[in-house]
Amino acid sequence: MSVTSSPFWSEAVTRLSPYVPGEQPRGEKLVKLNTNENPYPPSPRVAHALAGDAHLEALRLYPDPESLSLRKAIAGQFDLVPEQVFVGNGSDEVLAHAFYAFFKREQPLLFADITYSFYPVYCQFFEVPFRTQPLCQDFSFDVDALAGAAAEAGGLIIANPNAPTGRLLGLADIENLLEAYAHRVVLVDEAYIDFGGESAAQLIDRYPNLLVVQTLSKSRSLAGLRLGYALGDPALITGLNRAKNSFNSYPIDTLTQVVAEAAIGDRDWLDDCTGKVISTRERVSERLAALGFDVVPSAANFVFAQHGKVAAAEIYAGLRKAGVLVRHFDKPRISNFLRISIGTDAEMDTFLGAVERLLGDL
Amino acid sequence: MSVTSSPFWSEAVTRLSPYVPGEQPRGEKLVKLNTNENPYPPSPRVAHALAGDAHLEALRLYPDPESLSLRKAIAGQFDLVPEQVFVGNGSDEVLAHAFYAFFKREQPLLFADITYSFYPVYCQFFEVPFRTQPLCQDFSFDVDALAGAAAEAGGLIIANPNAPTGRLLGLADIENLLEAYAHRVVLVDEAYIDFGGESAAQLIDRYPNLLVVQTLSKSRSLAGLRLGYALGDPALITGLNRAKNSFNSYPIDTLTQVVAEAAIGDRDWLDDCTGKVISTRERVSERLAALGFDVVPSAANFVFAQHGKVAAAEIYAGLRKAGVLVRHFDKPRISNFLRISIGTDAEMDTFLGAVERLLGDL
Repeated sequence: MSVTSSPFWSEAVTRLSPYVPGEQPRGEKLVKLNTNENPYPPSPRVAHALAGDAHLEALRLYPDPESLSLRKAIAGQFDLVPEQVFVGNGSDEVLAHAFYAFFKREQPLLFADITYSFYPVYCQFFEVPFRTQPLCQDFSFDVDALAGAAAEAGGLIIANPNAPTGRLLGLADIENLLEAYAHRVVLVDEAYIDFGGESAAQLIDRYPNLLVVQTLSKSRSLAGLRLGYALGDPALITGLNRAKNSFNSYPIDTLTQVVAEAAIGDRDWLDDCTGKVISTRERVSERLAALGFDVVPSAANFVFAQHGKVAAAEIYAGLRKAGVLVRHFDKPRISNFLRISIGTDAEMDTFLGAVERLLGDL
Repeated sequence: MSVTSSPFWSEAVTRLSPYVPGEQPRGEKLVKLNTNENPYPPSPRVAHALAGDAHLEALRLYPDPESLSLRKAIAGQFDLVPEQVFVGNGSDEVLAHAFYAFFKREQPLLFADITYSFYPVYCQFFEVPFRTQPLCQDFSFDVDALAGAAAEAGGLIIANPNAPTGRLLGLADIENLLEAYAHRVVLVDEAYIDFGGESAAQLIDRYPNLLVVQTLSKSRSLAGLRLGYALGDPALITGLNRAKNSFNSYPIDTLTQVVAEAAIGDRDWLDDCTGKVISTRERVSERLAALGFDVVPSAANFVFAQHGKVAAAEIYAGLRKAGVLVRHFDKPRISNFLRISIGTDAEMDTFLGAVERLLGDL
């Protein structure tokens, strides 16, 4: 049923153009390289945490509204204290609260013209004015332009590494931006940081305007769990809690608190899984380049590439027919690019084989 | 750290007075009768659903964005179809999306002066104008006054049974209101309906303006799981999805989908647990009346009562000292009342014993 309007809807909800997430096919057997999931399972500690009957009694009661034990575990990973940690139902929810708490201002929020496409959706939902700053020709951030716009901006959001390009901004550039935006919040969205970048979390004690957002969905292999968190000065964390407690006073369920706490402590597992993804990514990038693709240097668990001769839409459709699902954004500047999540070596060989056959047939 | 303002906060977040949920004591051994949790464990099917390793592979992937299997299971309980079901992270989140989708209008939303105290918080968060309608002296709804205000109202929300009073409104009255508000959404918040009321869900096929909201937190003993749902015409469900997909595209995690689906199907367990709570409630109500309390007739898993001679604040404090936690709302009209959740018979005997000793000492 595709209802597009109703007299019962508010004007606000009628005006919205909601975010469209990548396809989650049901039933079909596909090599799924379209939503940047991790091809390796989560830490074995997750299974241990879920075993036993202790949860049954716990589920009867409301969860700890402060998620204190989980926040301590996250803080411990970054040499922070729990007062510097906020947790939410996935980093998408954490971002939503941040838009309300820090970016709902007269002045426009700034973000790149090519970045996570949920940012303008939040702006529409919370009536946050925004302005986009074009990336450079090679998709790198134009740091000087971003810094130069600080005086008139309501805030800055940087996805680092950026999505869907995969390009990384170094910490020296992040610091320049934090100084230029000293009067405004700079949100660094680090969903993909564990695949090759250095987290800005180490700068939190020096910059009260820095909010770092991370997720367990990618590097921790827990997309199904919906756990994201923000790290920052206690005043920013309090601001997020004020928004959260006016929307839903109980955000993280008991099972998620238990599983996330178990997973976050297993750094060896994290290093092992991200190491494998990085090495596969480098191999796939080289092979794609050899096949005539222009591959953007990636610090994430995906690559962003266009072919010199064959249109992205055509490759996307051909791969879909061959049982391989990648992501194609039909948007200005990037409509000829494909975003390919990094799977296991076997999955990527299937993908590369399908690409080769496809190019050979054309 | 109690931060009350910050230059980084938006005006909107600075203005908020967030909801304060009931205390969740850590460590202390208390008879906990303050947040309306069910004293009996959830269905044994929950343990079965969580057993095994199938979840580990599933957790790696994003959950089904449509929660289709769970929505089918819920729909089946009410002779509805999945297109008439919306699911969220607890009914608090479902309510939040409903306020945005249906009540963000020029005309004020109407609700009772004494009801769930999160309603005005949502209004503040989403800038929804509202007006409260006084309950009658005995805390029953003034149906004529509510119906009479329909023409100038942006919508109506009825908690049924009402909280914190426990009073029930019959379906004939609900129908009168649905007819008076034919041009606006009437949201019936049925968090406590399984403890003695009849759900308005059976009216959905006749009233396109009816939205029924329920939760697994109370009657299903799953407060720790955070699962709530809305039932209504497909156009209303689409409106909720538009709001949700502009806030967080992945609302229900995989484990919650699995556990909730297992629990919702176990109607025998539901009937057994709610039956026990109802019988304990009736016994406790009679005993409290015999001890000099004025007890509001309750159709919920709590009773709302004031003593003829001793102040509620004094009884609250005395019970706290005796290790029994109940809820006291220091608000106009109800500051001399206590809300006492119904626990097991043993817990209620402890509570009643403590009350008797307290009254004897005074």
